[in-house]
Order: sequence, then C-alpha cells, then structure tokens
Amino acid sequence: MTAGLFFEDLQIGQSARMGKTITEADILMFSAVSMDTNPLHMNQEAAERSRFGGRIAHGMLSGSLISAVLGTRLPGPGSIYVSQNLVFKGPVRPGETVTAIVEITGLNPDKKRATLRTQCLVKEVVVIDGEACVLVPSRG
Amino acid sequence: MTAGLFFEDLQIGQSARMGKTITEADILMFSAVSMDTNPLHMNQEAAERSRFGGRIAHGMLSGSLISAVLGTRLPGPGSIYVSQNLVFKGPVRPGETVTAIVEITGLNPDKKRATLRTQCLVKEVVVIDGEACVLVPSRG
Amino acid sequence: MTAGLFFEDLQIGQSARMGKTITEADILMFSAVSMDTNPLHMNQEAAERSRFGGRIAHGMLSGSLISAVLGTRLPGPGSIYVSQNLVFKGPVRPGETVTAIVEITGLNPDKKRATLRTQCLVKEVVVIDGEACVLVPSRG
Amino acid sequence: MTAGLFFEDLQIGQSARMGKTITEADILMFSAVSMDTNPLHMNQEAAERSRFGGRIAHGMLSGSLISAVLGTRLPGPGSIYVSQNLVFKGPVRPGETVTAIVEITGLNPDKKRATLRTQCLVKEVVVIDGEACVLVPSRG
Repeated sequence: MTAGLFFEDLQIGQSARMGKTITEADILMFSAVSMDTNPLHMNQEAAERSRFGGRIAHGMLSGSLISAVLGTRLPGPGSIYVSQNLVFKGPVRPGETVTAIVEITGLNPDKKRATLRTQCLVKEVVVIDGEACVLVPSRG
Repeated sequence: MTAGLFFEDLQIGQSARMGKTITEADILMFSAVSMDTNPLHMNQEAAERSRFGGRIAHGMLSGSLISAVLGTRLPGPGSIYVSQNLVFKGPVRPGETVTAIVEITGLNPDKKRATLRTQCLVKEVVVIDGEACVLVPSRG
Repeated sequence: MTAGLFFEDLQIGQSARMGKTITEADILMFSAVSMDTNPLHMNQEAAERSRFGGRIAHGMLSGSLISAVLGTRLPGPGSIYVSQNLVFKGPVRPGETVTAIVEITGLNPDKKRATLRTQCLVKEVVVIDGEACVLVPSRG
Repeated sequence: MTAGLFFEDLQIGQSARMGKTITEADILMFSAVSMDTNPLHMNQEAAERSRFGGRIAHGMLSGSLISAVLGTRLPGPGSIYVSQNLVFKGPVRPGETVTAIVEITGLNPDKKRATLRTQCLVKEVVVIDGEACVLVPSRG
C-alpha cells in the first residue's frame, strides 16, 4: 500500500482537509450509487415546495468527503475505518463547495486507534459535525 | 413532495430494506464523488497486499444505501435526516450484494423524531451497524 | 474491425476534427478515471484563488479528444497509437467547447507510419498543440 | 490551493507514483468523456480479430494517471502542466493495474520549470514512456 501515517506519527491536534464543489453530476452519480432517489435531490419542482426551497445534495454525499480525508491524508492509506458519527446541521446546494476537516482528538496506544473530530463546512458554516474512529498501523 | 409517511403512521418495529450489488462502476463513481482514491478501493495489487487480500468498496458507499431506505421508503420523502452513526464491521467486495435494513426503535412525539436501527448485510453477515435519527412531518 | 483508412489512402494535408462541450460531468468522470483530484479541477473556491480564477478542465481531458479523432476518423479504427506530444497552451473551463483537429504532416511508407499535427481549439484559440504518430494498416 | 511542493523543495531524482486497476467502468467512462469509441476499446468481438486479441484500454486513459501524480503528489497542487510526451509501448487490458511513476530529471531555476520522466507500468513492463514539463510555484 502507498503508505499513510503510522500510529506513532500521530498527535492530538493534527488536522487535514479537502474541499470539493458539489455539482449536478455529483448528485446524479451519488443517487445512482446509493439508490437514494429522494425528490429533495432529484426533483427541482418538488424540492422547491419543501422547507429547503430547492434541491439539496445528499447528506451522505458531503459525509463521504470525510472518508476521503481519512483515507488519503490523515491518517491516510493503511488505516481502517472503525466508525463514523454524522450530525446533519444544514443543507448543501448544487454549486456549493464543501470542505471536510478532520482533527485528531484522541489516541489510544493500546488499541492503536485514533479518534477524530470530523466536520464539513460551507463558507465557514458547519453543515455536518461528527466523530470518526480509525485503526492505524503501527511501526512496532 | 411525493409523500412519504407521516409521524402518526410510524410504529416501533416497522422496517424496510433495499439491496444493491456493488459493482466496479459503483466503486469508481463513488471515488469520483467522494475524492476517496484510497488504494484499498482503486488498486487491486496494493489491496492484495493489505489485510483484506483484495479491493473493497468504500465503507461510506454501503452506508449510503441506508440513506436511500430512509429517504425513499421509511419514513420516505419529506423526512429530514438528523444524524447517522455507522460502525464498520466487515468489508464489502466488488460483486457482493449489500442489503440495507432500517427498523424503528424509538419515537419522540414532542420532537416528531424517529430513531431507527440501521444495518447493512452481506449474506446475513452484518457489515455495518448503526443508528439514525430523522425528523418526520406531522399530519397535525 | 470496423474499417478505418489504409496507409495507401492517406495524403499529406488530410485533416479531421471532432468537438465536444466539456461539462461538469466530464470533469467529474475524468477525475474518477485518472484519480486526478487536483483542486484546480474539483474545488471552485480554491481555483478562484489560483492564477486561473476558477475551475478548469484537466489538460489531458482535452488531449483525449485527439485520441478520439485519430481512432475513429483519421486514420480511424485499425491504426495503432505510437506516440503523442502535447503542449498545454491555455485553460479550458467548464461549459467551453473544445475542437480537436488532426492533420497529416508526414508519411513514412517503409514503416507505414503517419505523423499528424494535433491541436485543440476553444473558439479559434489553440489550447493544446502537439504531434501524434500512428501506425496504419496497409492494403499490401 | 491545498499546497503542493515549491520549486525550492524539488531535487533531481525525487519520484512519486500512483496505481489504479483499469476496470470496464473506467473504459466506458473514458470513452464517454473522450468520445473515443474505437472498437478496440468498446467491441470485444472486433477487438478479438485485431492484433491485440481482445479489448484494450485507451492509451490516453493510462496516460491520464501521470497527470494525477503530477497534480496531486509531485509537484502537487499549484503546479502548471506545460507539456507531456507519451510513447505507447504496449497495451493495457481490462483488469490490469497500471502504476504511473514520475521522477524529476531536470530543474530550470530561471523558469521555475521541472522536467520529469513519466512512465506507466503493468507488472514491471513499461507500457507508456515519456516526459513531462511543469511550472512550479516559487517561495521567493
């Protein structure tokens, strides 16, 4: 595997981020992969009559960016995804740019597990808050 | 909105499910949407050297099927995703069929919120366990 | 194979072209296939802070249109791609239409190879310049 | 921009690589983006009658992985693609894993340009050889 970080490389407070503009094509492809064809995502007319006033991206689509940061940046390839909690705090609309940020908040040397605060932001506003746990390979 | 269920229609124990075969195309499209290009998902040779012995699907890809059941079946369109917890218990490999199952485990009439146990199975084996909370429209 | 041209059909100066509008969906799909998730292509906010002032398509995406003209028009199916040189002269933005043009500039009867000037244009402006060499089947 | 390397960080001999298994889905999506519908890539029956004995991936598809390494690893985001030469030396078949490797072979401090040898390998065999030139941001 292209090596990511080892458990011994991690410190509380380390963080990483990745940003992506969510386009119509993203929403279409995510609906195909997930089979989530909720009209809130697929039907502009129906979505205009909802509380959101227009189509929004799937919450789990934005959430999936967190997986990208964990799996490619911090800790990166080689780590194993143990759990992810997501609290959806606000909508993401087509054309908006979501930035996923992860920050190490806990390290368990016995289990080689790291806990990270995981957030998604749109222009400084938190649209997803949550926590991830990953198992990290050890040099030892 | 195409009508889903109202809060008054829900009962503890109600459940719904949707299944999907996870193909190479799903993994490719999910990597595009999420930007998660972890070699575990994209590089068969690297993945063969990992603990999984071959490529696996993104955990959040399987998790996204839960969103589909909640958003299109139970409670269906009109409900709002409040939170989702996911515990990743085992890998999903290309060609395997994932079934996402949700079951109502709690109802809060004051807040019009339903809590659901959410699981993803591959051939009876739980690969994701977790819990979702959704806000459900009321008839009242 | 659906027949393309034979070496004996080719003359210096012959040309062919194909045009395509580069959409958000093209950029997303190309990022998946290539794993090139450079923020210049995927993150509007980051790209706005770059010298380009906004997202641009992958240079190799526009370059791939040259392959389409060579492989489907001139010389067409049956020819073998030997080499391609690309000089990237300007950006292509989502929504712009790229026209790939190839023109035969050299013919080597001993090796049955054709050399072609290959360009990509956006509204008369050359965004890619270069040269291709292909091996062409012979009637002989 | 998520920062890549600066010109001052680069040295002759530095290298980076990324690998990807080329699936049917990659070939389909690349044909859609490029419009390269050459039967060698799309038609198993026609391709079986060709010199390759079966379908092969587009040469430019494998070549696009080079762009990913340059744009995300070495030098990474912020660098500008100036040119790319590709010599196609052998086919890539669906299911094979391509590894793109770039290595710095020249540095021009006046122009802040780096030259890199760029290769694509399938199981140690060079399927694409070539050279790239990129403009790299300077700290100065």
